[in-house]
Amino acid sequence: MALIVQKFGGTSVGDAERIRAVADHVARTRAAGNQVVVVVSAMGKFTDDLIRLADDVSPTRPPRELDMLLTAGERISMALVSMALEARGVRSASFTGSQAGIITDTGHTQAKILEMRPERIREALDNGLVPVVAGFQGISTEKDITTLGRGGSDVTAVALAAALKADSCEIYTDVTGVFSADPRVVSKARRLPKVSFDEMMEMAATGGRVLMLRSVEFARRHGVPLQVRSSFTWEPGTWIVEEDPTMEEAIVTAVTDDTSEAKITIDGVPDRPGIAAQLFRTLADAGVNVDMIVQNTGTNGLTAISFTVALTDLEKASTICGEVKEAIGATSVTTDDAIGRVSIIGAGMKSSPGVTALMFETLSSNGINIEMISTSSIRISCLVRAEKVADAVRFLHTAFGLDAA
Amino acid sequence: MALIVQKFGGTSVGDAERIRAVADHVARTRAAGNQVVVVVSAMGKFTDDLIRLADDVSPTRPPRELDMLLTAGERISMALVSMALEARGVRSASFTGSQAGIITDTGHTQAKILEMRPERIREALDNGLVPVVAGFQGISTEKDITTLGRGGSDVTAVALAAALKADSCEIYTDVTGVFSADPRVVSKARRLPKVSFDEMMEMAATGGRVLMLRSVEFARRHGVPLQVRSSFTWEPGTWIVEEDPTMEEAIVTAVTDDTSEAKITIDGVPDRPGIAAQLFRTLADAGVNVDMIVQNTGTNGLTAISFTVALTDLEKASTICGEVKEAIGATSVTTDDAIGRVSIIGAGMKSSPGVTALMFETLSSNGINIEMISTSSIRISCLVRAEKVADAVRFLHTAFGLDAA
Repeated sequence: MALIVQKFGGTSVGDAERIRAVADHVARTRAAGNQVVVVVSAMGKFTDDLIRLADDVSPTRPPRELDMLLTAGERISMALVSMALEARGVRSASFTGSQAGIITDTGHTQAKILEMRPERIREALDNGLVPVVAGFQGISTEKDITTLGRGGSDVTAVALAAALKADSCEIYTDVTGVFSADPRVVSKARRLPKVSFDEMMEMAATGGRVLMLRSVEFARRHGVPLQVRSSFTWEPGTWIVEEDPTMEEAIVTAVTDDTSEAKITIDGVPDRPGIAAQLFRTLADAGVNVDMIVQNTGTNGLTAISFTVALTDLEKASTICGEVKEAIGATSVTTDDAIGRVSIIGAGMKSSPGVTALMFETLSSNGINIEMISTSSIRISCLVRAEKVADAVRFLHTAFGLDAA
Repeated sequence: MALIVQKFGGTSVGDAERIRAVADHVARTRAAGNQVVVVVSAMGKFTDDLIRLADDVSPTRPPRELDMLLTAGERISMALVSMALEARGVRSASFTGSQAGIITDTGHTQAKILEMRPERIREALDNGLVPVVAGFQGISTEKDITTLGRGGSDVTAVALAAALKADSCEIYTDVTGVFSADPRVVSKARRLPKVSFDEMMEMAATGGRVLMLRSVEFARRHGVPLQVRSSFTWEPGTWIVEEDPTMEEAIVTAVTDDTSEAKITIDGVPDRPGIAAQLFRTLADAGVNVDMIVQNTGTNGLTAISFTVALTDLEKASTICGEVKEAIGATSVTTDDAIGRVSIIGAGMKSSPGVTALMFETLSSNGINIEMISTSSIRISCLVRAEKVADAVRFLHTAFGLDAA
């Protein structure tokens, strides 16, 4: 008898009909002889409705109260899913994050899990029940309700799977799996039956929208096999698993795109040790995440530093850079929000020379200029004009032989 | 510095605008030098929406899950009220029933409070915060979320006021207080500045819709002065207090009406000891509450037993009576759902003879036939045809000098 954690996102429990379909699927999984733990998000756009109400009563959003407010969403969906299971003769009980023993730090709206104490979930399983657990939420060491931030319900599912030593964790969503590129951009994108954790992490970090980096990291660290599947077609989806060293790896598995970043360039920076450190420390202290970084040393003892930040952080970052510019005596700060990143990812890249060359050739021969480059052992990313991103993804998808037949 | 518990019902927190108005009022109460604990119900018709969703996913309503579902409502309103207070510079924190230490039995959907442990509420008050507590909910001895049944938010407010030794408990609603009769029935009904607990309990038990019997009983037992007020006009409302023996009491304070009951008559019952006991024990065991009871002994050794039950219990009660009829050899069971009850209530009635006579004369001289009578020391109730109830209330209101000038 396998133990499976099944997580259903907002669209999967969007209305009563979807909830009944979810209950049918859980009942089938149970009837096939498995133990099941269900994790749910809030219904559809309910969380957005709550945020709108909050904005309507308060210009600020006190974080503790925002968490208290938003966790109402999962409470509703979990109770409804549990009721729908009972209606199918599947004994069930719902549990809040607190009742499920998800202990977090006190970082309201983006709390980190400190400890899992899922005693009540284990007990429910032992008693033959299907526990339905609220995703996205926990209880802090101060006994206040917390939320886990974006993608938090996936984190709940993976953390529960790890703590319960589940055989797998299935993430149900409105797409049928992980694709070789965004199907809205590349019509010939293929669903991947299997992706390694390393690849999935690179994809999540470079614009893959199916899973958040955090839950993939968590799953990998605890060795939880993940599967991404559709709650609309219920067909088998994509497994995210440890690399299998006995199998030959595809050189390139997927092409991702990301237009949610902007570029900042500081020109005329004195080429002294510690200057870059000062800049990026100041940005980090202000909570700005910096992504790609490139530094070019000129011949006159001055360098240019370029880096990317999330579009949402652009204003804050550019203000900080202006201040740093004065302090270090740089020439100018320029920002560019019309850039995009295209990346190729593949575990086989490590042992295959020539991948970088083919990527650059493909882009240049199609008239796409590369503005910045960054690489890891299994990824190459190029910064290009935003309006060229979709073309770049399509050309690379074809060039690396990923197009579906 | 007084400590005041202010409870706001569903219409009082019905939308963002109402919530802002509530926050304004709490801020004013605070600025006047009082400590305030706020208790809130779910917003407007939100609970009804949730019940509709539940019915849509499950033909039954598993009680534990129904409680989990419904408590989301107060969680939303309490977080929003707390945010609105913070927006006015009033430091605040919201607390679930569980966090407020409201410990109940395991009777889901109508749990009884076993113990109050409001340590976190006290601590919040000591720290200068306005605690906002979810009404209607608690946590059971099994650590499951429970709800307190109809009128449960009032019970939460009164129980908190008692446990915190508050100076008063203000129940805010969409009416301006307790009236000498239902203003929709009697246009000349007057708002009562003061009502005794005894009178209020009789009013609640005989159709007064402002407060539920349970919260009044609770307030009386713990000596919590209650005030019913409007959250729309904010004008002073009605105080419900211990009787003041030094004041002369009005003979009749209010006239109430109730058309939510039905009458059952069992005819030809052998006049033997224990027969009535057997009937009412069977009904009680089935959870049917019996209200007025009349037994007439005939001359032939047979009696007729009539009693009233809630309309919602009529079907169940009449089935039981059919079975009991066979068992005891009675002649027939008849039911009548077109009856209504009109009651006069007044603490001064105890020492005033002639009240009963005036009530009967008023009804009979206006052609209203009395079908059953029941009395307590401060109340007289008459069962009449349902269609005569409104007239009966108006005639009695005038006859006992209650009409506003």
